Amino acid sequence: MLSRVGVTGVKKPVVVTRGGRSTTLFCTLDVFVDLPSTQKGSHLSRNLEAINEAVSMSMTEPISGIEIVAANICRALREKHEYSTFAEVHLIADYFLERPGPSGKRNLEAFKIMADAISRNDDGLKKMIGVEVVGMTACPCAMETVREQYCNNVTMEGDLPVISHNQRNVATLMVEVPEDCDVEANDLIDVVEQSFSSATYEVLKRSDEAKVVLQAHQRPKFVEDVVRTMLSFLLERYPHLPDGVQVTVRSESEESIHKHNAFAERVATLGDLRNSR
Amino acid sequence: MLSRVGVTGVKKPVVVTRGGRSTTLFCTLDVFVDLPSTQKGSHLSRNLEAINEAVSMSMTEPISGIEIVAANICRALREKHEYSTFAEVHLIADYFLERPGPSGKRNLEAFKIMADAISRNDDGLKKMIGVEVVGMTACPCAMETVREQYCNNVTMEGDLPVISHNQRNVATLMVEVPEDCDVEANDLIDVVEQSFSSATYEVLKRSDEAKVVLQAHQRPKFVEDVVRTMLSFLLERYPHLPDGVQVTVRSESEESIHKHNAFAERVATLGDLRNSR
Amino acid sequence: MLSRVGVTGVKKPVVVTRGGRSTTLFCTLDVFVDLPSTQKGSHLSRNLEAINEAVSMSMTEPISGIEIVAANICRALREKHEYSTFAEVHLIADYFLERPGPSGKRNLEAFKIMADAISRNDDGLKKMIGVEVVGMTACPCAMETVREQYCNNVTMEGDLPVISHNQRNVATLMVEVPEDCDVEANDLIDVVEQSFSSATYEVLKRSDEAKVVLQAHQRPKFVEDVVRTMLSFLLERYPHLPDGVQVTVRSESEESIHKHNAFAERVATLGDLRNSR
Amino acid sequence: MLSRVGVTGVKKPVVVTRGGRSTTLFCTLDVFVDLPSTQKGSHLSRNLEAINEAVSMSMTEPISGIEIVAANICRALREKHEYSTFAEVHLIADYFLERPGPSGKRNLEAFKIMADAISRNDDGLKKMIGVEVVGMTACPCAMETVREQYCNNVTMEGDLPVISHNQRNVATLMVEVPEDCDVEANDLIDVVEQSFSSATYEVLKRSDEAKVVLQAHQRPKFVEDVVRTMLSFLLERYPHLPDGVQVTVRSESEESIHKHNAFAERVATLGDLRNSR
Repeated sequence: MLSRVGVTGVKKPVVVTRGGRSTTLFCTLDVFVDLPSTQKGSHLSRNLEAINEAVSMSMTEPISGIEIVAANICRALREKHEYSTFAEVHLIADYFLERPGPSGKRNLEAFKIMADAISRNDDGLKKMIGVEVVGMTACPCAMETVREQYCNNVTMEGDLPVISHNQRNVATLMVEVPEDCDVEANDLIDVVEQSFSSATYEVLKRSDEAKVVLQAHQRPKFVEDVVRTMLSFLLERYPHLPDGVQVTVRSESEESIHKHNAFAERVATLGDLRNSR
Repeated sequence: MLSRVGVTGVKKPVVVTRGGRSTTLFCTLDVFVDLPSTQKGSHLSRNLEAINEAVSMSMTEPISGIEIVAANICRALREKHEYSTFAEVHLIADYFLERPGPSGKRNLEAFKIMADAISRNDDGLKKMIGVEVVGMTACPCAMETVREQYCNNVTMEGDLPVISHNQRNVATLMVEVPEDCDVEANDLIDVVEQSFSSATYEVLKRSDEAKVVLQAHQRPKFVEDVVRTMLSFLLERYPHLPDGVQVTVRSESEESIHKHNAFAERVATLGDLRNSR
Repeated sequence: MLSRVGVTGVKKPVVVTRGGRSTTLFCTLDVFVDLPSTQKGSHLSRNLEAINEAVSMSMTEPISGIEIVAANICRALREKHEYSTFAEVHLIADYFLERPGPSGKRNLEAFKIMADAISRNDDGLKKMIGVEVVGMTACPCAMETVREQYCNNVTMEGDLPVISHNQRNVATLMVEVPEDCDVEANDLIDVVEQSFSSATYEVLKRSDEAKVVLQAHQRPKFVEDVVRTMLSFLLERYPHLPDGVQVTVRSESEESIHKHNAFAERVATLGDLRNSR
Repeated sequence: MLSRVGVTGVKKPVVVTRGGRSTTLFCTLDVFVDLPSTQKGSHLSRNLEAINEAVSMSMTEPISGIEIVAANICRALREKHEYSTFAEVHLIADYFLERPGPSGKRNLEAFKIMADAISRNDDGLKKMIGVEVVGMTACPCAMETVREQYCNNVTMEGDLPVISHNQRNVATLMVEVPEDCDVEANDLIDVVEQSFSSATYEVLKRSDEAKVVLQAHQRPKFVEDVVRTMLSFLLERYPHLPDGVQVTVRSESEESIHKHNAFAERVATLGDLRNSR
């Protein structure tokens, strides 16, 4: 048998309706089922039919999240490939959200929104929702070394933090959404964005720029810290999600002092996280 | 604790000496260790030191394969991050090999060569070698339908196969290399290249082109077939590799009749493969 | 002075209203102005303000094409950077359009839509609209050689074309839109899609697949032919566009028999094209 | 006629011998010729033959720079496509060079090396060599605003610069190489690397990191400044290159406070540059 057979890079607009507001998301999808050794080939056109049915349904019957679209496709895959014991769906889309800038002025910022769904045997269906957010990190280690080497440990004027290197950081957070539970992508964006040294912004006037720089240096963070902070905020935000819920969290810093990136990841259940606090 | 902390996108030339011939490979590396909750941060510069030591060693003491370089880096990561219980190395590089064309004339063809190494607790170290090869697939299903619909099932002139859609296919094969065993990247390239409907070539004169087209249509293959054929050739090629050896095989067709790709994958042990023949 | 100073990779949703129907496009923008040597730096935040003003305008006052959005941003750039003698805007977005499949059933297909605007001194403003379409080409040369070498030049059963290699082809068409003229992206998609050996489709049932394969082999085309056909259809479609209108046309075939691509391009005015017929 | 017909994405190892030392570069090539309207198609396999001949020549007869390889391919293209009035070659490769770190310890750093060659009618052949270097910029504007807003203009302890945002910057420099002149890629890397706020390094121990951070903040630079500095160092380095020599210089900052990049470019002749000093 083959582990996964399917199609990748399918592009499809999906309508999600949340709080009375409909948004069109331009999704890129990868979908797979397994294939028993008794079958010569998988019927690949059925994958597209499964996608199209789930997407059409989202037009007539409002769907509140892309993880539900992913789950519906996953169910349709299992039905259409009647021999399958497994189905998997990955979905990613550009996503825009209005956010207040440092001076309070609201502006659209760009994110990515993601969903996964996996169905295995008769174990039911697991669905996940996630976001990718671009933020900023300032390095605590370089800051400390600069202070030691060049400041004689004397504090700065007005407690201004000392210089460090800072850079663009791309962080992702994926959370399992159990049946009858609700996890909102916009909340996940909040969780991730607050975990950086600073959020990033499309438009910054001069004084805003100084505020962002100051905040980033007042909250210096390693990639490891970004991961830990996301997990900590996530636990606070979702106290009622059960212990079995799976979480994957990543932070990648495009280091300004290096040509390579720094990376940290944690894969865990909420139970693991609660026990290790 | 964090699952993986490290650096990604490190570029480094590595010298591999095989059969008395030294080749320089320009590698891109991702390396990670885990991080216990008692540690605030991972010392990221140690990752670069681990890479550099293993690479320097390859200059002075000839190394016969990049999976050994990956393993050496993996070992150095565990030593340098003394708190770690896990280390992981991924390595990929452009690779060139002289291959005979359809008319026998030899020419350099471009491939990718890959290696992974994983060390977990005291379980010893697992290393894998792999290749990525670009080939061609012709679709058996469309060929059959064309024959049914347009040929009245009458055979063609000189048994020439009927038309079908064909396209570029990217296939990868990763194989675990147990201690005291040897798996040669060049052999893996053979295995993969023979599993397509046809290999692809840099230079083809007119009559060569016709030969390639003919061969591809005489061996029409789904992505599923490419995966199965690679596994079958692999078993033949390595009868002495133990049953526990892990294999990951993928084939992705950049479908000429669609805007999306077709994909098949099998993850298995050689034991699984041998039992399912 | 500097030739171009600006921002790249800005993401922004833009609303276009055409034929009474509003569509949201998720655009990626690059914008630039020149910088005289008397200025130390360009005010980069003004670029974002220029983009935001033009985009906000598109919400309140319906805009009929993204080339008009590009032109409005270009004008705003010149105003906000009062020292500039030049401004340039590039914009690209995913785009979906309902198309009939081979059996007439309509389905959404994915494309890319693009716009450029350039303003130089007092020469007024030049704007272009374009599309990127994924299609299929079958090689006429391999087909002919196969016929010569393997068919003894005997015709096939029912005039069925002989085998050839075929592959995915990515073609782009950009056309200048003069003041008071109208060029519709949907028409450009028609022009490009009809210039391939065959269009490509998201969903194809078995008999549809055979139709696509047959059509592709009945219209074998080199990359050069795709470019020439696009230009020819474009001239037919827009007889009234003036001779000065600039056109850029490209076709790139992801060759199934090679690891590299084949490429053809023509940059010309409609006048050039009309004179060379 | 068609402006450009050819092949893209050809991979090929090329040997360059300089100062008695041979280096293998793994190049990716795009090559084109024009096609008169009297020709139905360009013979694409001739492009590969042109590449292979020039590359083979580099094995037997040492070649001192990749711009010469590009020029040789360009000449071969014109000869093999006897109808052509134009030929163009682009070549890019990973490149490694030993560089001293902040504490003097030498280490291999990764760069890209590029070459172009263009032949038009009987105008002879123009060849260019270039490099892509990853460095670091610290923003002078944010630094000044922070000082104004948070420091009451009081100087810092030990004249330590105040905080700013800094980030990865990718800069490219391409220079025409006239007949009988020599431009060394390694020198161009020097020119670019010294034009950033700071170079970037693969391995940095703690005290090195502090030195890099300090230097970057002592030399804050806009993308515009990086471009101007590169041009200025280039003029100093090559006083004897003629005025007609063409130069293209770019700097792109992956802004840490934004999700988009900042970009600056100058396209000029050395004469333009000398006159505008």
